Amino acid sequence: MPGLDITALERIGPLDADAVVAARERQQRLTKPAGSLGALEELSVRLAGLAGQCPPPVPQRPALAIFAGDHGVHAQGVTPWPQEVTGQMVANFVAGGAVANAFAAQVGATVTVTDVGVAHPLLAGEPDRRIRAGTRDFTLGPAMTLGEATAAIATGMAVANELIDAGHDCLLTGDMGIGNTTPAAALIAAFTGAAPAAVTGRGTGVDDVMLAHKTEVIAGALLRHRPDRADPVAALAAVGGLEHAALAGFILGSASRRVPVLLDGVIACSAALVAQAIAPDSVLAMVAGHRSAEPGATVALRHLGLEPLVDLGLRLGEGTGALLAFPIVASAVRVLRDVATFDSAGVAEK
Amino acid sequence: MPGLDITALERIGPLDADAVVAARERQQRLTKPAGSLGALEELSVRLAGLAGQCPPPVPQRPALAIFAGDHGVHAQGVTPWPQEVTGQMVANFVAGGAVANAFAAQVGATVTVTDVGVAHPLLAGEPDRRIRAGTRDFTLGPAMTLGEATAAIATGMAVANELIDAGHDCLLTGDMGIGNTTPAAALIAAFTGAAPAAVTGRGTGVDDVMLAHKTEVIAGALLRHRPDRADPVAALAAVGGLEHAALAGFILGSASRRVPVLLDGVIACSAALVAQAIAPDSVLAMVAGHRSAEPGATVALRHLGLEPLVDLGLRLGEGTGALLAFPIVASAVRVLRDVATFDSAGVAEK
Repeated sequence: MPGLDITALERIGPLDADAVVAARERQQRLTKPAGSLGALEELSVRLAGLAGQCPPPVPQRPALAIFAGDHGVHAQGVTPWPQEVTGQMVANFVAGGAVANAFAAQVGATVTVTDVGVAHPLLAGEPDRRIRAGTRDFTLGPAMTLGEATAAIATGMAVANELIDAGHDCLLTGDMGIGNTTPAAALIAAFTGAAPAAVTGRGTGVDDVMLAHKTEVIAGALLRHRPDRADPVAALAAVGGLEHAALAGFILGSASRRVPVLLDGVIACSAALVAQAIAPDSVLAMVAGHRSAEPGATVALRHLGLEPLVDLGLRLGEGTGALLAFPIVASAVRVLRDVATFDSAGVAEK
Repeated sequence: MPGLDITALERIGPLDADAVVAARERQQRLTKPAGSLGALEELSVRLAGLAGQCPPPVPQRPALAIFAGDHGVHAQGVTPWPQEVTGQMVANFVAGGAVANAFAAQVGATVTVTDVGVAHPLLAGEPDRRIRAGTRDFTLGPAMTLGEATAAIATGMAVANELIDAGHDCLLTGDMGIGNTTPAAALIAAFTGAAPAAVTGRGTGVDDVMLAHKTEVIAGALLRHRPDRADPVAALAAVGGLEHAALAGFILGSASRRVPVLLDGVIACSAALVAQAIAPDSVLAMVAGHRSAEPGATVALRHLGLEPLVDLGLRLGEGTGALLAFPIVASAVRVLRDVATFDSAGVAEK
């Protein structure tokens, strides 16, 4: 895949088998009935395998990265929100006034906002990582060139590497882009084979008429471009978004460093499918933060084989679902590190 | 109800209507699509009504209270674990080696352990709050006298008041008691009218044969005692446990101070039904932390009208599910306090 960091992609590999065995055995010896922590036990085992040690490091410095972009398909009337809101919300994140900021403060996460393609930016990004002022309308042609999609992926990988180099030990995906559930649904249909109607949802507030139209727009784009998951960057360029591409790179970057990456909602899930198609073992670094109310998220999570940690009907994006899940992930790992064994605590077994 | 703090119970009342209206209106003006925070929006509205102000205080000093007791019905072979484990686990909590300690450290919660009836204590409780060395076998007679049940409720209320007086602003329920899912199931059947088979589960690891026997034991006790939810303390005394009674008091104490109380799993849910029968508005202070894998928990939550925040197949108890949910509750409240409005942030509406 020309333009991508092949060395980094080649580092994305299987779990460390010894650490997996050690973690599974340790879960059996801790002072609790075997299996009583439900889904958290397997999560801790996987994170041991990802880190290559048992216990794995407890994530203590989470970083949320919000990627923002606009969408040419906005012109087709797929959302009731004006496109200006993307840039206004970027300013809101920077000022600390969004829900993602409130949730980040609760869990001690830093918030980074990267403009990869806002149509009407209010703030100058520093460094400037804008690839273009929004994608093209994919009902008329590809949303991005291959070069633009590749550049957005590389930007996401660079952000992941910078955050990890700065000491962050758990990355969280965030997104902002008015209309971005439309390309997300198109990507999910393309990468899972699901029908457009099964993956298209109401986003941030679409009525019945607009939902039917949105579904038609997506179905039409799939017919026009015939995106093929065997050629994932081309499929992404055809019907994706700049923030979706950057998130795919961010996930790949995190996986290449063997750092867990918490997926937020449907935008992250669509990007995760792209990442999986580029490097299948990247799924081993992914933790599904929550189940978005968008139907495509559930279709994507099933395809990825991931069970979400939180399921509260959220449909906001920004990284809010990933932020809610972070303390659960840290708690799961703490068990392997901090809990006494039956022997050490002098507790009888059944 | 003789022996209970009537003044405290009379303070348990409805939500403050003005604060509820203010919170609901504020949720509409914040920079997010209306309804996009799903279940967290109504939770924040309710906590505003509980506090009587909008925004309500963000809970920042959570306290987990673990109540420990043993059960005469253990003699009937309803669990594979030896009774000694209750006292051993109390020592493990005090030493900081249990899963509840690890989860509490993650969310910044203090952990208090109260022995209200451990059969084989290893540590002297300070202050001594032991009511008796485990309940009586309820297949032979009432598990507790009315006086013992009332004393355990009063103990739970006292612990709640002490923690709130010490500055804690959110209480979390925890429990330890080998065999305590058996009285929990009996209480849930008694207070909801559900059939014993619908509320009896595998606890911490019961096989098919023991599950059938456990269900029979519970059905037999219900036939023998005919516990009546119209006389909740008598029903609790007949088929409950000392920690269940203390938890009911703990919930009532928190509600009487208008402080939110996070319910853990099936033991807490059974105690919550008792609290609800004593003071119906106490439900308004309850937040369901998680959905325990025990079937009775779901039956009880439905009866209480509560939706759990976390649903990960946990069946450990100790307060682990409540601890995982705490950051979600705090995040929901932070939204009302910290998030900008469309006007203040200069963000356009749809």
